[in-house]
Amino acid sequence: MANILIIHGPNLNLLGQREPDIYGVEGFEQALATLRSEFPQHTINYQQSNIEGELIDWLHEFGFKADGIILNAGAYTHTSIGIGDAVRAIESPVIEVHISNTFAREQFRHESHIAPHAAGVIIGFGMQGYRLALNYFK
Amino acid sequence: MANILIIHGPNLNLLGQREPDIYGVEGFEQALATLRSEFPQHTINYQQSNIEGELIDWLHEFGFKADGIILNAGAYTHTSIGIGDAVRAIESPVIEVHISNTFAREQFRHESHIAPHAAGVIIGFGMQGYRLALNYFK
Amino acid sequence: MANILIIHGPNLNLLGQREPDIYGVEGFEQALATLRSEFPQHTINYQQSNIEGELIDWLHEFGFKADGIILNAGAYTHTSIGIGDAVRAIESPVIEVHISNTFAREQFRHESHIAPHAAGVIIGFGMQGYRLALNYFK
Amino acid sequence: MANILIIHGPNLNLLGQREPDIYGVEGFEQALATLRSEFPQHTINYQQSNIEGELIDWLHEFGFKADGIILNAGAYTHTSIGIGDAVRAIESPVIEVHISNTFAREQFRHESHIAPHAAGVIIGFGMQGYRLALNYFK
Amino acid sequence: MANILIIHGPNLNLLGQREPDIYGVEGFEQALATLRSEFPQHTINYQQSNIEGELIDWLHEFGFKADGIILNAGAYTHTSIGIGDAVRAIESPVIEVHISNTFAREQFRHESHIAPHAAGVIIGFGMQGYRLALNYFK
Amino acid sequence: MANILIIHGPNLNLLGQREPDIYGVEGFEQALATLRSEFPQHTINYQQSNIEGELIDWLHEFGFKADGIILNAGAYTHTSIGIGDAVRAIESPVIEVHISNTFAREQFRHESHIAPHAAGVIIGFGMQGYRLALNYFK
Amino acid sequence: MANILIIHGPNLNLLGQREPDIYGVEGFEQALATLRSEFPQHTINYQQSNIEGELIDWLHEFGFKADGIILNAGAYTHTSIGIGDAVRAIESPVIEVHISNTFAREQFRHESHIAPHAAGVIIGFGMQGYRLALNYFK
Amino acid sequence: MANILIIHGPNLNLLGQREPDIYGVEGFEQALATLRSEFPQHTINYQQSNIEGELIDWLHEFGFKADGIILNAGAYTHTSIGIGDAVRAIESPVIEVHISNTFAREQFRHESHIAPHAAGVIIGFGMQGYRLALNYFK
Amino acid sequence: MANILIIHGPNLNLLGQREPDIYGVEGFEQALATLRSEFPQHTINYQQSNIEGELIDWLHEFGFKADGIILNAGAYTHTSIGIGDAVRAIESPVIEVHISNTFAREQFRHESHIAPHAAGVIIGFGMQGYRLALNYFK
Amino acid sequence: MANILIIHGPNLNLLGQREPDIYGVEGFEQALATLRSEFPQHTINYQQSNIEGELIDWLHEFGFKADGIILNAGAYTHTSIGIGDAVRAIESPVIEVHISNTFAREQFRHESHIAPHAAGVIIGFGMQGYRLALNYFK
Amino acid sequence: MANILIIHGPNLNLLGQREPDIYGVEGFEQALATLRSEFPQHTINYQQSNIEGELIDWLHEFGFKADGIILNAGAYTHTSIGIGDAVRAIESPVIEVHISNTFAREQFRHESHIAPHAAGVIIGFGMQGYRLALNYFK
Amino acid sequence: MANILIIHGPNLNLLGQREPDIYGVEGFEQALATLRSEFPQHTINYQQSNIEGELIDWLHEFGFKADGIILNAGAYTHTSIGIGDAVRAIESPVIEVHISNTFAREQFRHESHIAPHAAGVIIGFGMQGYRLALNYFK
Repeated sequence: MANILIIHGPNLNLLGQREPDIYGVEGFEQALATLRSEFPQHTINYQQSNIEGELIDWLHEFGFKADGIILNAGAYTHTSIGIGDAVRAIESPVIEVHISNTFAREQFRHESHIAPHAAGVIIGFGMQGYRLALNYFK
Repeated sequence: MANILIIHGPNLNLLGQREPDIYGVEGFEQALATLRSEFPQHTINYQQSNIEGELIDWLHEFGFKADGIILNAGAYTHTSIGIGDAVRAIESPVIEVHISNTFAREQFRHESHIAPHAAGVIIGFGMQGYRLALNYFK
Repeated sequence: MANILIIHGPNLNLLGQREPDIYGVEGFEQALATLRSEFPQHTINYQQSNIEGELIDWLHEFGFKADGIILNAGAYTHTSIGIGDAVRAIESPVIEVHISNTFAREQFRHESHIAPHAAGVIIGFGMQGYRLALNYFK
Repeated sequence: MANILIIHGPNLNLLGQREPDIYGVEGFEQALATLRSEFPQHTINYQQSNIEGELIDWLHEFGFKADGIILNAGAYTHTSIGIGDAVRAIESPVIEVHISNTFAREQFRHESHIAPHAAGVIIGFGMQGYRLALNYFK
Repeated sequence: MANILIIHGPNLNLLGQREPDIYGVEGFEQALATLRSEFPQHTINYQQSNIEGELIDWLHEFGFKADGIILNAGAYTHTSIGIGDAVRAIESPVIEVHISNTFAREQFRHESHIAPHAAGVIIGFGMQGYRLALNYFK
Repeated sequence: MANILIIHGPNLNLLGQREPDIYGVEGFEQALATLRSEFPQHTINYQQSNIEGELIDWLHEFGFKADGIILNAGAYTHTSIGIGDAVRAIESPVIEVHISNTFAREQFRHESHIAPHAAGVIIGFGMQGYRLALNYFK
Repeated sequence: MANILIIHGPNLNLLGQREPDIYGVEGFEQALATLRSEFPQHTINYQQSNIEGELIDWLHEFGFKADGIILNAGAYTHTSIGIGDAVRAIESPVIEVHISNTFAREQFRHESHIAPHAAGVIIGFGMQGYRLALNYFK
Repeated sequence: MANILIIHGPNLNLLGQREPDIYGVEGFEQALATLRSEFPQHTINYQQSNIEGELIDWLHEFGFKADGIILNAGAYTHTSIGIGDAVRAIESPVIEVHISNTFAREQFRHESHIAPHAAGVIIGFGMQGYRLALNYFK
Repeated sequence: MANILIIHGPNLNLLGQREPDIYGVEGFEQALATLRSEFPQHTINYQQSNIEGELIDWLHEFGFKADGIILNAGAYTHTSIGIGDAVRAIESPVIEVHISNTFAREQFRHESHIAPHAAGVIIGFGMQGYRLALNYFK
Repeated sequence: MANILIIHGPNLNLLGQREPDIYGVEGFEQALATLRSEFPQHTINYQQSNIEGELIDWLHEFGFKADGIILNAGAYTHTSIGIGDAVRAIESPVIEVHISNTFAREQFRHESHIAPHAAGVIIGFGMQGYRLALNYFK
Repeated sequence: MANILIIHGPNLNLLGQREPDIYGVEGFEQALATLRSEFPQHTINYQQSNIEGELIDWLHEFGFKADGIILNAGAYTHTSIGIGDAVRAIESPVIEVHISNTFAREQFRHESHIAPHAAGVIIGFGMQGYRLALNYFK
Repeated sequence: MANILIIHGPNLNLLGQREPDIYGVEGFEQALATLRSEFPQHTINYQQSNIEGELIDWLHEFGFKADGIILNAGAYTHTSIGIGDAVRAIESPVIEVHISNTFAREQFRHESHIAPHAAGVIIGFGMQGYRLALNYFK
């Protein structure tokens, strides 16, 4: 039984509400319920913050005890050296997930400070991306 | 009667105290009182934070109910993809204001992640910039 | 009573005719008539040219006697060191106005050779931008 | 029952032989046998070529009839506008997979001409990446 | 007797725990105790946060009354215009310290938004860097 | 019977006189006479100016009534956002022609602000380029 | 009677099938039949390949005996130094043709390794471009 | 007896009036009178325009009969490919003169499109620069 | 007795025929005969292809059994990550040879994706370069 | 007792004489005398040269026997790969010192070829920087 | 009577011998004799070195007593921050002279570290440049 | 009998002592003795200096009389326009040699100011590179 943490960065609290053509109409709470029922072997915790430093705090807090972390750091992905440093510093494997296809958007969303230190990266599958990530931790 | 929110980003709490040759000697509280008396038809709320994520939180909280938002995100203007994403995601029109003439300062202050999603941009008029923005919401 | 000059650069003579989704359907003459009636305390003169050097000529001619200049140099904004030099050389305060949100368009429209020497910059408010500028000169 | 094609680009025929610390010691034929047994509901075809144009040929040939394509174009990922154009032109959904974490390698491996047109991108999970992609097509 | 504040930015709370080959095995609390005993003439306060805005808050709070500030802003050093603005705005002299040799690491760690406004910069001496900075305030 | 305007930009008045190894020895008036006799079904008007704004003036004047415009804006091709904007704003189809092979010359002659808005681009065929353009309007 | 070879690069075999808004609905075979009937004085051969090296092979094979070559190298135009070298090395004049307006698409389609060595370049006229090129060889 | 033309570009009509710390307090007419008396062996003509194309017109008009041209194209120096082309196309030797030290000013004033085609370049000597240029034509 | 393979990339089949001022007048077959007679202790095989992927195929085929490979990948040298990856993956030492002085030609010929993985690089000695390489394998 | 060498690069012989607002009014000989009296436990040698190669010579000569080297290579810091190579090659620990705050000056003074190989870097403390460096060697 | 020093940098000792199409056939000693006879009111000293640091040494030695220095630093002009610093530090006015038209040569010869601190710059007049510089000191 | 000069630049006097994993354990004197015995038909002179200008001096002194020069300018290779100019100015053929594979090291070691003017370049063969160069002069 694996202990998994999903961490969401800025603006992802608006899922289901914000730009439905990019992010879909389903709120994340709903999606989370579905994921939990599909992966009963995982304990799936969830944290969201718009504050860069709180994402770092959670990586520190859970990064030495969680079996896996699924991190969608949203816009901070592309600018935060600090989150990247945190992912490198901790011990739990981190999977970077993006709902939208960041490569099909602005140039500044193509690079990631997190990816070099991640166990893997999953981009552009919509909500399916979380399912693929949880599959990996099986 | 319009419901307006003014949001201030990092270091703008030092107005009146910090670099008076760039930002003037008047604290923003004083300026705010004057603006309120000049625009009695507006309810003008005000929030300031040095934390990027709190600016995003307020944009989310007020961005679906305020009639207009005046956003001076200070230094985050030039680096925060997340605030730009928030401005794009919400419904209230956002006016970006800068007190100093950012084009006359360092190159890294010439670009804005917020401006592409703003209803308009007002730069370099000192405290007058807020007055112009409030005029626009009349 | 203030003496104001509005200077328009290339292609702005096509307002009302050209790309209405960007620039609106109202010709500038119409807009000018409205502005004059709204600001009876200003004498508002107007010049338009597609020739860079004529814009410089007018800045020289009026720049030592007008109470204010509202300059929308259109495409020359982004390439004309000469207009920028003229704005720096004259004494009348110059407000740079853009009808469309230049930050939401091509990268080469984000920079301005005029802005560093302007009294202020107003971008993206459509025809309202001129009203805000005239307000400033009140 | 889904009809899936896996396409491999240059040097991936050396899997199991080449740089085992990056690509592992298992040859792809072995891995393919395992994948086929794990996903009996898929018919999984496999093509490998070191020739850019042959990858394009296969995308054309299968891209209007396969239910899904898993494409690891290897080094061509980062330079081939032509493969990117082919992925955009065809109808079958294409998942881009990389065995190694390309973000943790040279800068020139961070960009992809294929990704903007892919249904999704999976990077850095080793051979597991193919499993995740096949899961997606379930 | 000087009143000194040491401010630590993101991930520096993991000192002693994180990447010991770069940052050493000693936690900062231990190091701080030693520094206090070595510099009895200083009152040394200490703050750490992973939140960019809290670093700005402390610079504001102490920056008009501390005799000196030792600032290791970690990863924010290289991206935070806001912390740089805060250092410029306050009155206490700020010494920028980095434990590791940032010049020997990734290119994006070579620049600093803080350094232009600092009283001095000390890089790469490990924990000794704090000792040198405290020496300077003697 | 088509109404065609040929517009020439800076230095093209020197054709036949200037750098004959690049531009040939024939003056444009001569070439024009030949073209008129070869294309009796077209009324071919011709304008040349060294002044950027006059090229814009003509595009405005003829751009809503000519059946086609052949534009060789010479050196302004590579720097004039204003001419590009004019071509985008008008209705007549514009063909961009260059006598010399601009791709075989300095790097700064490889880009064009006009081309993205042109009906087509013809480069490097010498005087033949005009013939090809007139063929297109048949 | 001229001996002309048309060479097509990657993805151009999909003409009529692929992205009809960019490339039209007519397959190239059809277009070729029309061109042959319109230019009975030319023998028009045609080759297409998705393989860069085969394009080079044909340039070598025909480049010392064809009276003219019309080359649309598709995506290889922008990256293939080798095709550019081949065009420079052979004796037959080569006309570079692009169906779509490459200047109106992504930045990476604006440069050409072939153009500096071509007899001329024709861009953006759709299938008409081939007609113009054949006209040139008359 | 040499026939010399001095051509001045944009904003140089403001000499003596504009930014005296950079350009001095003497108007150019005064300076010209002095130069004429010092170089009685030269016929010195003088033209000034703020219009790029008029500078090109004069270079064409005098460039095949003057014994020498002294060209201070002001701000156009750094952006005008057209003036550079004109200088290359004509026969009279052209000396490029700048009053201020352009290398000590903004980066965009360090390059010149004229200089590669000039007989020589004289920068930063104030009004003395014209004297040195006239000396050269002796 | 060493087993040596010489691999030639695009356009090198034209040696003796193509641009003799850069590549000389001698065809490679002739040169090869001479080299074989000069180095009787080597078995020298030779392969040429204009197809990038075939160069990779040969590197794979011979790269685990040849005593040495002399690779002149021509234009692919500067763009082919795939050939570079192949050279890194195989075991036989590879010497990169260029006939012309690539450093004296266009900027894009100065970099090499092969060189970082080569046993050595020999540039600009004409046909002598192969002799030097064969000497090295003695 | 430690054997320390201070090496000074170009223009540092002018200390006390050159630009006193940047470098202070005290000559280095004076400062050296003070340092020697403050650090009686060190033997402090001193060398200055304006010649890059002589700095390398001294690093070689003393770099295998000194207990520590304090290197202020002045302007060579930012361009000399050779001095950087020498610092890497020798065994004595090298501390890089700059008197002025190089981060507050031109961009080209922000990088250092020496720093990646230094034991530590001390910037902007004026003459105090040498004292801090000597403290480190205690 | 003015005391003038001419300083020559690397390779200028080869004048008259090296690349006569760029630098002319006259050795500098000859030219110097002519200059001395033409300017009897000046004492003209001359120093040449290929060593960057010796150029700095002479600037220091003469830069506080010469009435003027004419500096042609050759190739060091474009890379030597140290010579630029020396010119800024001394008191004698320095004129930068280049024999060839550096703007007509490689891009890396267009910038100068010396020019921002020079009293003036004279480029491309051949040996005449020295005469113009000496005229200035009259 | 050929007269050959080997010139070594900065830090190459440390061969055998410095970074043996890059440069080997053999001192150059030893290697030189071996080379002399292997090439009795050559008179091989040798010079080493850490001073850029001395390398230029030797190129001048020997560059009109030596039969060949083997130049390993070490770190100056990548920055010295002056040494490149010297190689271009002299008559003896110069072979550029690097012991280590500069393409496998930092990006700034990939370019060479010398190579464009060299008779050939030999990189990465260790001490064997000198042998290959001497072979060339046979």
